[in-house]
Amino acid sequence: MNYKIIAISRQFGSGGRTVGKELAAKLGVACYDQELIELLANKSGFSAEHIAELNEERSKGSIIPGMADRVERALQHSLWQSQRDVILDLAEKESCVIVGRCADYILRDRADVLRVYIHADKDKRAKRIVEVYGERDDTPLKRINDKDKRRESYYETYTTNKWGDAENYHITLDSGELGIDTCVKLLEILC
Amino acid sequence: MNYKIIAISRQFGSGGRTVGKELAAKLGVACYDQELIELLANKSGFSAEHIAELNEERSKGSIIPGMADRVERALQHSLWQSQRDVILDLAEKESCVIVGRCADYILRDRADVLRVYIHADKDKRAKRIVEVYGERDDTPLKRINDKDKRRESYYETYTTNKWGDAENYHITLDSGELGIDTCVKLLEILC
Repeated sequence: MNYKIIAISRQFGSGGRTVGKELAAKLGVACYDQELIELLANKSGFSAEHIAELNEERSKGSIIPGMADRVERALQHSLWQSQRDVILDLAEKESCVIVGRCADYILRDRADVLRVYIHADKDKRAKRIVEVYGERDDTPLKRINDKDKRRESYYETYTTNKWGDAENYHITLDSGELGIDTCVKLLEILC
Repeated sequence: MNYKIIAISRQFGSGGRTVGKELAAKLGVACYDQELIELLANKSGFSAEHIAELNEERSKGSIIPGMADRVERALQHSLWQSQRDVILDLAEKESCVIVGRCADYILRDRADVLRVYIHADKDKRAKRIVEVYGERDDTPLKRINDKDKRRESYYETYTTNKWGDAENYHITLDSGELGIDTCVKLLEILC
């Protein structure tokens, strides 16, 4: 492989996670997405459920009723540091695909990391999230806008980059236009 | 070809023009870059030299001594409209590669246009512009910053997009990291 690590950032509903899993399968390496939360739970002592809530998918409002914002921010920051350590350790230990969690930024000083961003237009993403995750009370568009905003805010809190800026990545792909299989094919060529 | 037109936006010094020329040669179609200026000169009655000055590469200050900013802006706007017409006509008539000139935006409503952005980090671009264009009085970094700023300003004056935003493009490639040959190879697969 030309790259030891493939770090994939992705818009919600773009199929970036699927691209990561399929690419990892083709390369014969592991893909870390939710799996990172398990590693982090082991390291940090937080439950996987609380990690998910304090992480990039975090919804609005306090996750623990009555908890002060200040305390929550401190917890989130502590979790960020643990997550950063887990990702840095992982990159030392094995070749893998890592989806999300600012891995592109955390590993920016390594020359063996391919930085990827997967996006698609909102109509295509709306269709996809209903197919993959089913209907919810909120409209698909609202779900996309909320989650995009959370990921952007998380990324821009913990990095000095702008979310979705082409310059952060070695390659960005519109999975809605190109299709997931083609995205995997192009990335496989680079790896 | 899956796409009739390949519209390539590019950072100065990224080799985006070379990518366009090499891709066009492989696809057996024309590549329009400076050639667009000739087409535009025929259509608009402006000289090729004035077009270059009023166009996206425009340097600071008045191009015609004593000309009021207001008049210059009106000329630039008129030229933009002629250039837009030339690009729209071209897309109707033939399959081709078009470098710069906001072609990605002008042709955004066509489903047969692949939108591409080529970029690279500043150190690699600085090295490349000295190799390709030679030394100048200004440092390579100043030349890059000036030209990036002009292209960004031109793009954002005439489009509703943000320059360099991954969402504008079907694919963006870091030519400094991946190399020009690999960029051409990936685009050829998509075409």
